[in-house]
Amino acid sequence: MEKDRRILEVAAEAFYQNGFHGVGVDEIGRRAGLSGPAIYRHFGSKDEILATLLNEAMDELMSATLPVHGNPGRDLDRALRHHADFAVAHRHLVNLYQREIRSLAAPWRRAFDRRRVQYTERWERLVADRFPGMPQATVAAVTQACLGMVFSVSYWPARSLAHEDLTGLLLELLDVGLRGHDRAGGEASGGHDRH
Amino acid sequence: MEKDRRILEVAAEAFYQNGFHGVGVDEIGRRAGLSGPAIYRHFGSKDEILATLLNEAMDELMSATLPVHGNPGRDLDRALRHHADFAVAHRHLVNLYQREIRSLAAPWRRAFDRRRVQYTERWERLVADRFPGMPQATVAAVTQACLGMVFSVSYWPARSLAHEDLTGLLLELLDVGLRGHDRAGGEASGGHDRH
Repeated sequence: MEKDRRILEVAAEAFYQNGFHGVGVDEIGRRAGLSGPAIYRHFGSKDEILATLLNEAMDELMSATLPVHGNPGRDLDRALRHHADFAVAHRHLVNLYQREIRSLAAPWRRAFDRRRVQYTERWERLVADRFPGMPQATVAAVTQACLGMVFSVSYWPARSLAHEDLTGLLLELLDVGLRGHDRAGGEASGGHDRH
Repeated sequence: MEKDRRILEVAAEAFYQNGFHGVGVDEIGRRAGLSGPAIYRHFGSKDEILATLLNEAMDELMSATLPVHGNPGRDLDRALRHHADFAVAHRHLVNLYQREIRSLAAPWRRAFDRRRVQYTERWERLVADRFPGMPQATVAAVTQACLGMVFSVSYWPARSLAHEDLTGLLLELLDVGLRGHDRAGGEASGGHDRH
């Protein structure tokens, strides 16, 4: 199990550096200190390694989208905070996902896509619960806009990452933006509904 | 020249669909309706095609970062609006950039990286001029956060793209977020400066 962890870590680093297609299973084995085909006792293929990395990340992010406070404001805040922390701490993994999700072979890809749909639905529910008057199309767009800002950390240049409290900065931009948007948009769409 | 345009268009589509490494120059030629090595009369290599695509996009985005109104608020708004429109209209090209910028061969890559530094500097100047009290590290982070949200449109799912005014939505989230952040952060950092 400890060996699995080591393989996943060196694989994430190698994929990030050279791209999924630029790295062989043998190289991952060597980087993990395994000789010859020993790596196949741990993972059957490069696809399995990539799928495991992405699924582990999804496990963690998925758990952050579950409402636990019984309070829509605090639940959304918790999810945003968890995601911002995750994106800052695991920039390379997020970057790997953004660049290589299409490299995932068909069976893994389909399973992952199903999880991603579930994940998106949970996120949209968090946003909709927090802003009950928001039209569904707006909820869907606002959710992606927030996730897009948070996950963009994965390709920020070093000078932008130097800010001392990135999570706090992201949360503030999003929190203020969302509340302001809801106030402005709520009136407009409320007007629409009355027609 | 018209042929060049056609080649660039089919290449962008092919790179987006199959990845830069998954497409050959011959295939691009065929898709553009050219026979045999005729494509080499237009572009010397696949790298030159990718570099041309990315440089054209950079030309347009760069021009949007020039202050023209003599008013920091309107100049920042213009840049954000132009970027949001661009991202919505050219999602596949933005996605190509995000996934394939590392695929660009060394000489093209270096030239492009220099332009990108200049582009980032211009953006940070727009933000700094709009929010004069904002610390430099915050300007650098806020700039990337805004661009990250805008360009994330390139991988939004269809249901989120269905919103009828994506540009307006993005501008509102960012405008409200930025102004709110400046008010809150301005006090905190002002306090710091006085120590």
